[in-house]
Amino acid sequence: MKAEIIAVGTEILLGDILNTNAQYLALQLAELGIDVHYQSVVGDNPQRLKDTIFHAFSRASLIITTGGLGPTEDDLTKETGAEYFDEELVLDERALKRIENYFNKVGRKMTENNRKQAFVPKNSTVLYNDNGTAPGIIIEKNNKILVMLPGPPKETVPMFEQQVKPYLAKKQEYTFVSRVLRIAGVGESSMETIVKDLIDSQTNPSIAPYAKDAESILRITAKAKDKQQAEQMIEPVAQEIYRRFGNDIYAEGETNMQTTVAKLLIDKQKTIATAESCTGGAIASALVEYAGISSTFIDGCVTYSNASKQNRLGVKSETLQKYGAVSPQTAIEMAEGAAKTANANIGLSTTGVAGPDGGTEQKPVGLVYIGLTIDGVTTVKECHFVGNREKIRVRAVYTALDYLRRELLK
Amino acid sequence: MKAEIIAVGTEILLGDILNTNAQYLALQLAELGIDVHYQSVVGDNPQRLKDTIFHAFSRASLIITTGGLGPTEDDLTKETGAEYFDEELVLDERALKRIENYFNKVGRKMTENNRKQAFVPKNSTVLYNDNGTAPGIIIEKNNKILVMLPGPPKETVPMFEQQVKPYLAKKQEYTFVSRVLRIAGVGESSMETIVKDLIDSQTNPSIAPYAKDAESILRITAKAKDKQQAEQMIEPVAQEIYRRFGNDIYAEGETNMQTTVAKLLIDKQKTIATAESCTGGAIASALVEYAGISSTFIDGCVTYSNASKQNRLGVKSETLQKYGAVSPQTAIEMAEGAAKTANANIGLSTTGVAGPDGGTEQKPVGLVYIGLTIDGVTTVKECHFVGNREKIRVRAVYTALDYLRRELLK
Repeated sequence: MKAEIIAVGTEILLGDILNTNAQYLALQLAELGIDVHYQSVVGDNPQRLKDTIFHAFSRASLIITTGGLGPTEDDLTKETGAEYFDEELVLDERALKRIENYFNKVGRKMTENNRKQAFVPKNSTVLYNDNGTAPGIIIEKNNKILVMLPGPPKETVPMFEQQVKPYLAKKQEYTFVSRVLRIAGVGESSMETIVKDLIDSQTNPSIAPYAKDAESILRITAKAKDKQQAEQMIEPVAQEIYRRFGNDIYAEGETNMQTTVAKLLIDKQKTIATAESCTGGAIASALVEYAGISSTFIDGCVTYSNASKQNRLGVKSETLQKYGAVSPQTAIEMAEGAAKTANANIGLSTTGVAGPDGGTEQKPVGLVYIGLTIDGVTTVKECHFVGNREKIRVRAVYTALDYLRRELLK
Repeated sequence: MKAEIIAVGTEILLGDILNTNAQYLALQLAELGIDVHYQSVVGDNPQRLKDTIFHAFSRASLIITTGGLGPTEDDLTKETGAEYFDEELVLDERALKRIENYFNKVGRKMTENNRKQAFVPKNSTVLYNDNGTAPGIIIEKNNKILVMLPGPPKETVPMFEQQVKPYLAKKQEYTFVSRVLRIAGVGESSMETIVKDLIDSQTNPSIAPYAKDAESILRITAKAKDKQQAEQMIEPVAQEIYRRFGNDIYAEGETNMQTTVAKLLIDKQKTIATAESCTGGAIASALVEYAGISSTFIDGCVTYSNASKQNRLGVKSETLQKYGAVSPQTAIEMAEGAAKTANANIGLSTTGVAGPDGGTEQKPVGLVYIGLTIDGVTTVKECHFVGNREKIRVRAVYTALDYLRRELLK
């Protein structure tokens, strides 16, 4: 089954709203093994909306729309859908009742145009809305399926999850299962070179490379009769990729570096303190994203000034004078000082030139030192990052956490 | 001029990436007064990509694509664009040089397929990329314009801003000028109610309300022959809005709360130290985003554990025992302790329940106390935020900075 996702709404065309529904639905359809070849966005314009729906049905058998089911005159998705299937709109008493109840509940007055939302195409399945006033609709006729969902994500998502997903799952002969391997410290093109032979020789499972922020990703996808069979097909491919990348693969699935490191710290029962200069607290903040971190994260110091490095961490003034704040020596003393003053197993530090100013020939913008002490053993890593201030800081955070991860795995 | 935005990338169709470029470009084109009737997304498939570009040119004269300029075999946007305009691809020596330099600088090995990125359509304008390896391209021929931009927003946005926007602006008969007023502490619907009469009565300049994360935004847009005339038309409308919102308007234009607060601190010559619990360093990290912050930001403590609150900030153990870590008393001692131990004018603290666990009936998830001391005068603010852990933390950071801003303006 081929599908298309169409978002209806001038506010998306004008950039006032980010189309998060498209991503949500894309992920859901991928999981169901339904191919999506196109997504589109069209405004609240009757002719263009009609053209878009008709054009989409010329190349796909399933269309999911979001938006345009509201009470205003602009909202025309339902009317256009009904026209495509040559069905008239009729009043759905149950939908009307629910809309009336909704207005009672929120204590707002129901206006006449809200009644418009209770009209549905004849011979359609009504998807009652627990989180708003617009019912969704499924029309299935002549091997074409049109699913119309409301626009606000808090209505779209539960309606799809509870009512549309089970409906579509029943129609699928095959299951698609994916495994996502997340790779740190290897650029996208190097990663692709390493697995090019596998990518070229595989069709099922298929292997797809892509890059996101500082990391590279490989997704292995298998098509099979059931989940178990798909997983069995993926396993040897994943093993071969693990053989080639080893520890560069830091995690699988929908996760990130900070979550991996937080879990590893908890697992190894190592307490940590951070001492950040150029990253300004972003490493601490990343670790604290993880809800269970309190058992291992003691504290963090954002020692931006030299005075603070001395005061909070005991960095020696001679060190700062002789080598400068951005130096391996300072990074080491910061890491050791963090661990010591917080009484933690681990101290992790950053000091660098995030730019745009402050760079010199010896210490250019992008130079960052990462200091790390684990149970008394201290090491330091020199990095050169490219990009603007934000990019350099993001990469410094990612690399510091990855460095800690690799050392913990040794 | 009618335009379409096309995102190229299977990773968007699969839902792995949110298409934020489309929103950014939609906003930019709206500001330029260029109508966008459709947006679409197509995968890395030669035939479908070709169909999409050809179809879009059948109804629009400007197409902006993002993505598909990478080094891999999948990346085919440039080839398809060249085919539409019947131009061959030729090596651009300057682009090649820049790619080589990029790899030298980051210390990674350039692979053969990176050379592919230096090939550009003949008779095109090359947009050199300061933030990545793929150059962008503009082809203009037979009253059609194709602008091809790289996919990563960190590359797309500066390339559009610096190179494409001025190019497109020259082609427009009218100038559209916008002023964006950023409003803190007022919800979107309250804001709309306050200015509804203005919105309804204005067409040029128009007033558009929208919401983004924790803030509300009003955009005033005027259409005029030149920039000066447009600005004059906007001025009285802006004045009226200032009259209604006062200090709730924290800044204008493309900026954010942390930049406003950083500038205010520098302007008032007040040094600051932060003490964060639930926000985990995110306030410090937000302030450090601002490059000039070093003159005012002394340091930050991420005192996640009770021991750390006592050790780093001198919070009394009786206070923690009697009132708990999440209490106005602890927030006050954290703020005062931060200012005192860092020898700063200002101490700003947060302590709260970010969830998902740890909430009680008295202290539910979302309860956050913000402590603030300025030159010896200490106050505390109690907040109740709704949402998941991430949302609560984001709102706590924003509200703490806004609280500091308002107190500094008193």
